[in-house]
Amino acid sequence: MRIAYQGESGAYSEAAAQKFNPDAAVVPCPAFDDVFQAVETGRVTCGALPIENSIGGTIHRNYDLLVQHELKVVGEVELAVIHSLAALPGVSLEQVTQIYSHPQALAQCDRFLRSCSGVEIVATYDTAGSAKLIRERNLKNTAAIASERAAQVHGLDILRTGIQDYADNITRFLIVTRPAAIADVLGAREPNKTTVVFTLPNTPGSLFKALSVFALRDIDVTKVESRPIPGRPWEYLFYLDLAVGTQEYRCGRALMHLAEFAPSLKTLGSYPSALTVAAKLPAAATTGPGAAAQ
Amino acid sequence: MRIAYQGESGAYSEAAAQKFNPDAAVVPCPAFDDVFQAVETGRVTCGALPIENSIGGTIHRNYDLLVQHELKVVGEVELAVIHSLAALPGVSLEQVTQIYSHPQALAQCDRFLRSCSGVEIVATYDTAGSAKLIRERNLKNTAAIASERAAQVHGLDILRTGIQDYADNITRFLIVTRPAAIADVLGAREPNKTTVVFTLPNTPGSLFKALSVFALRDIDVTKVESRPIPGRPWEYLFYLDLAVGTQEYRCGRALMHLAEFAPSLKTLGSYPSALTVAAKLPAAATTGPGAAAQ
Repeated sequence: MRIAYQGESGAYSEAAAQKFNPDAAVVPCPAFDDVFQAVETGRVTCGALPIENSIGGTIHRNYDLLVQHELKVVGEVELAVIHSLAALPGVSLEQVTQIYSHPQALAQCDRFLRSCSGVEIVATYDTAGSAKLIRERNLKNTAAIASERAAQVHGLDILRTGIQDYADNITRFLIVTRPAAIADVLGAREPNKTTVVFTLPNTPGSLFKALSVFALRDIDVTKVESRPIPGRPWEYLFYLDLAVGTQEYRCGRALMHLAEFAPSLKTLGSYPSALTVAAKLPAAATTGPGAAAQ
Repeated sequence: MRIAYQGESGAYSEAAAQKFNPDAAVVPCPAFDDVFQAVETGRVTCGALPIENSIGGTIHRNYDLLVQHELKVVGEVELAVIHSLAALPGVSLEQVTQIYSHPQALAQCDRFLRSCSGVEIVATYDTAGSAKLIRERNLKNTAAIASERAAQVHGLDILRTGIQDYADNITRFLIVTRPAAIADVLGAREPNKTTVVFTLPNTPGSLFKALSVFALRDIDVTKVESRPIPGRPWEYLFYLDLAVGTQEYRCGRALMHLAEFAPSLKTLGSYPSALTVAAKLPAAATTGPGAAAQ
């Protein structure tokens, strides 16, 4: 199995792909769009996409791309994010005058960065990419905020670790594949989570009615997200995560009920949920739902 | 009246502040945080903050800041966003090798940018700031995507106008003030819209129950937004826009009903809604709700 991810080697998305399937070959891509394309063209089996961080919130771009492409969600991975400050070997914290990282990572290390007075903070496109840049350009007074693995891969030393503001910093990734490959990727695992996207008539109470089809059947809605519909100001696409697999009778009935009044409704995938607890165990013990199926 | 906004002179936020009150003095600020601070310290009466764009979606940072500060929403402005490509006088489109703008503006002009083959696209912190930079550094082969007004202010010529992908590109701004200044800013205008933020018990069906307190009283919910609670993975703050003012009996009853089971509930403000139609009229005819009160 080959799994595509966005970023450079050492990216958190790469770790998520490896957690989903430790035996898979991982394939770096420059942008999220390229991950979708790599899966669609069959160059890889799956793509690993960050969808939500417990501090920074939703990565909306990937919700938008899920609607634009015909891929299905087949898995979910949660990954504890532990940011490190890394620099070229021999460089001490006192010598650092510039810190590079992705804007989300910079925001997540706000308290640590405030303690580095006089240091210039530079936003870059990628955490692991920042580590790579420092190595390639031999930047001696620059450090990157990235994973310990990114530092290792790009030959940097760790100056500090665990510099994120909140210990409970978790990113949730979705694993996507072509519809024809779903059975192969799922294997014997049974879906217990479903993501749907729909539009609603622009009338009072329509979201309440939409949620009622699940509440009346005791189906838990674990996440609600709305995104604008381009060209139709203040109308939205709604994304719901449901704590139920589509193979369950009440899920099918609820979705048929929703389709009675939702002008459009699409199931983005039904898949085994990530075990939240797995992300909190030490690395050696976290096999995750992906590993079990291989 | 003085109204603070984020950005350089010519920013869309400046136009929103002027639309809210054409007689107000407008005060530029480097960041959204600075706008909040300027209002809190009394340096200005109000702040104008973009909260949602009909193409790009919510500006989450401002929802986060609304919760962290004790300011209240007193008004709403909708502004049609018309992007122009501007460069130093004498520079033709064929001579442009670089285009600068804010990532949101770049995304909104995607189709136009794809037609500019061989041109480097550079993300900057600000649309009007990009125009300013080109003037300050005398960048001859560079153009900025910004408002026509930003081009004017910073001495650039318009190469193309209306280059956004969708004609219906509208940004919604909130006007905030100190609680003590609400009556002054509102004047005789009656609120018909309310924004609230709350948490919910982490139990199945709790969002459905929350929406029911409004649906059962025929109160329209025009927007739902959720944001993570830092340190509590997969728990959310919910933001709702209600099409009713807090002075209405049913609004007060609904909020008391919600408070029965919501661990926390805060009204961020009750204010006159922007007239959607105003944003679509020619500039001379768009007085908006802000102008009427002055």
